[in-house]
Amino acid sequence: MATSPGELPLERLAAFSDAVFAIAITLLVLELGIDQHAGPHLLHSIVHEWPSYLAYVTSFLTIGVLWIQHSAIVGSIRVGDAGLYRLNLLVLLLASFLPFPTKLLAEFIGQRGPERVAAVFYGLTLLAISLSVNVFARYAAQLRALAPGDVETDTVRTLVRTPSLLLYGVGIGVSLLFPTAGVITYLASAIARGLPTDAVRSALGRA
Amino acid sequence: MATSPGELPLERLAAFSDAVFAIAITLLVLELGIDQHAGPHLLHSIVHEWPSYLAYVTSFLTIGVLWIQHSAIVGSIRVGDAGLYRLNLLVLLLASFLPFPTKLLAEFIGQRGPERVAAVFYGLTLLAISLSVNVFARYAAQLRALAPGDVETDTVRTLVRTPSLLLYGVGIGVSLLFPTAGVITYLASAIARGLPTDAVRSALGRA
Amino acid sequence: MATSPGELPLERLAAFSDAVFAIAITLLVLELGIDQHAGPHLLHSIVHEWPSYLAYVTSFLTIGVLWIQHSAIVGSIRVGDAGLYRLNLLVLLLASFLPFPTKLLAEFIGQRGPERVAAVFYGLTLLAISLSVNVFARYAAQLRALAPGDVETDTVRTLVRTPSLLLYGVGIGVSLLFPTAGVITYLASAIARGLPTDAVRSALGRA
Amino acid sequence: MATSPGELPLERLAAFSDAVFAIAITLLVLELGIDQHAGPHLLHSIVHEWPSYLAYVTSFLTIGVLWIQHSAIVGSIRVGDAGLYRLNLLVLLLASFLPFPTKLLAEFIGQRGPERVAAVFYGLTLLAISLSVNVFARYAAQLRALAPGDVETDTVRTLVRTPSLLLYGVGIGVSLLFPTAGVITYLASAIARGLPTDAVRSALGRA
Repeated sequence: MATSPGELPLERLAAFSDAVFAIAITLLVLELGIDQHAGPHLLHSIVHEWPSYLAYVTSFLTIGVLWIQHSAIVGSIRVGDAGLYRLNLLVLLLASFLPFPTKLLAEFIGQRGPERVAAVFYGLTLLAISLSVNVFARYAAQLRALAPGDVETDTVRTLVRTPSLLLYGVGIGVSLLFPTAGVITYLASAIARGLPTDAVRSALGRA
Repeated sequence: MATSPGELPLERLAAFSDAVFAIAITLLVLELGIDQHAGPHLLHSIVHEWPSYLAYVTSFLTIGVLWIQHSAIVGSIRVGDAGLYRLNLLVLLLASFLPFPTKLLAEFIGQRGPERVAAVFYGLTLLAISLSVNVFARYAAQLRALAPGDVETDTVRTLVRTPSLLLYGVGIGVSLLFPTAGVITYLASAIARGLPTDAVRSALGRA
Repeated sequence: MATSPGELPLERLAAFSDAVFAIAITLLVLELGIDQHAGPHLLHSIVHEWPSYLAYVTSFLTIGVLWIQHSAIVGSIRVGDAGLYRLNLLVLLLASFLPFPTKLLAEFIGQRGPERVAAVFYGLTLLAISLSVNVFARYAAQLRALAPGDVETDTVRTLVRTPSLLLYGVGIGVSLLFPTAGVITYLASAIARGLPTDAVRSALGRA
Repeated sequence: MATSPGELPLERLAAFSDAVFAIAITLLVLELGIDQHAGPHLLHSIVHEWPSYLAYVTSFLTIGVLWIQHSAIVGSIRVGDAGLYRLNLLVLLLASFLPFPTKLLAEFIGQRGPERVAAVFYGLTLLAISLSVNVFARYAAQLRALAPGDVETDTVRTLVRTPSLLLYGVGIGVSLLFPTAGVITYLASAIARGLPTDAVRSALGRA
């Protein structure tokens, strides 16, 4: 589709973002590992890694939901511009940073002092991601006014809700006092928006 | 293509999934390595790494076949919804988790006790992946009823067969008693469905 | 779209490049890490990692801007040939090399002697990337003369400006004398072209 | 585009392969590294890493050229089938394995005994990749007879030439006697087919 001066097509923005989200989400598994000398008590070691799995699932679902939101936002417009491209970079910068606080969380959960720092740092990153997506969605809404895309505004609105900002704020506050409870807040938020309970039920014919 | 409220296009679901599968499949090679001090007996060290190659090939072909199945399922429908997107996340979560049990398998094969744990853990992951793909295929079949895609239902059915569930169950049972035999069951299943023996023969003109 | 002998379609060149840029940009986070024993003073350790964040953001924005340029250049032509494909490989070779000098920069900043070497090495890589993009843009301009693409020449010209060559040259010169100032020059250049200040302001309705 | 029973579309095969090649090519940089204590003599350490750069460039250009070939082959047909998908997996399996012998080469070059093993192992992998691409091209040629794609047969033939098999055979033979010379043979082959000398000259207007 021809673009006017200053306009940029969206196919590559989508493809590049898909790849960045995909890599960030898949790199998380690299942090999982068992000590080489764990042989004699491997089962115990695998179970003992639960904070890593917790962090893994939370970050996986968080990035997954983020990608669904991104996908809907970009699908709702027809062309982009340099501003949208740069805002997109900001979203990706924050999203691809998440594996770092995830690693800290997995490592320091259960250690009283550092666990608080790690949980708050993690929550701040989630909050920053969420803020950037909201700005991205608003900017896209302006471009949509000029040339609407295929995805309906309502579909976008259902997927990108402001409450998540509030929820992360609460999670950070809770983390300051009770780090583990804070992490569970983050996880609950990710599960609530990411796990396909309805879809599984429907697929199994019990809907 | 325009979508109704609640509908989401499939191009990005496909692109994102392609990237996740591609990364999971390519990360496997990172686990392969030779001790830096192996110099004087490098050939022996390379050969001695056989459990790593076994795990590498099994996981590579497993994810490869999974990707072919995914590709056919998504090709059989015309539009998606949030349910499909979330189910897809679940499939990807499990698929991108596979490098972790693969690493354990490569590390502990040949060590009597832990090898059993690693082989069963690996098999359980394969089973979970297989279950999630089956649910994904069923959900897609519902969407197909509304708006069929280009790939024929028969093509999907040939590629996503229930027997694989049974096969993995058997592999897990065998692993409990004879871990190595269990791993060979997994490998055989992956090779049977993944290696292009017919295609090679046909390409070389001996078909 | 049918191609003449020697012509190659651009979809895959775009997709492959997107993936390479995406991986290079996302791998950067792998270098971030905190010592496992940092527990008792984790907050301090996180703050103490500032050279890593500096290097991370500089390289992220550099590759991000590079990708925007690439995206516009490829969007401005309609078909490619083997020459374009090979030039593209050269751009990607240099871009995907950047994580290595980034790692050195993050590691040696603050150490008087090596910091100079790391900053100059980093700057030379930026310069080489910039040179290769300029050649790539020129070659594409020749192909555009035969079959123009959707993106306007002006849009490309605005995004791929020669001054960046000059800027990197200055940065390298400064790095020889004052390494930290040199790195800040690189960062400033990346921020100036990569951060979406205008877009954020516009999205928040204050434009 | 609608497909008949057993047929599979090619868009996702292309996208998945692009991602695998892109990851394999970009992971190579992860092997580059400088000892943390190299500070006082960093410049020397950087130069001293030359075998790593040699291996890096050789593998980068090898996978890059392989990707150009793959791109042309897939562009020359209109639909695929399960056989093509599986053959494709085989090509990707071998291509994504290359980072492992690359790592060995970078590590052991210059050590008299192991260097020979590493160079031959590397060459055997190149040979296996080349063989698999040839089979892939032949199989695709059969599918092309049924439904030709956009890329001309001649374009494919120019890019996928049998001589490369011979060249790798020679390289392996040479490696057995003079490992370094063998590696230079591999590099020369990659440079000859991968570096855009003509395109650079043409872009600079000296063609």
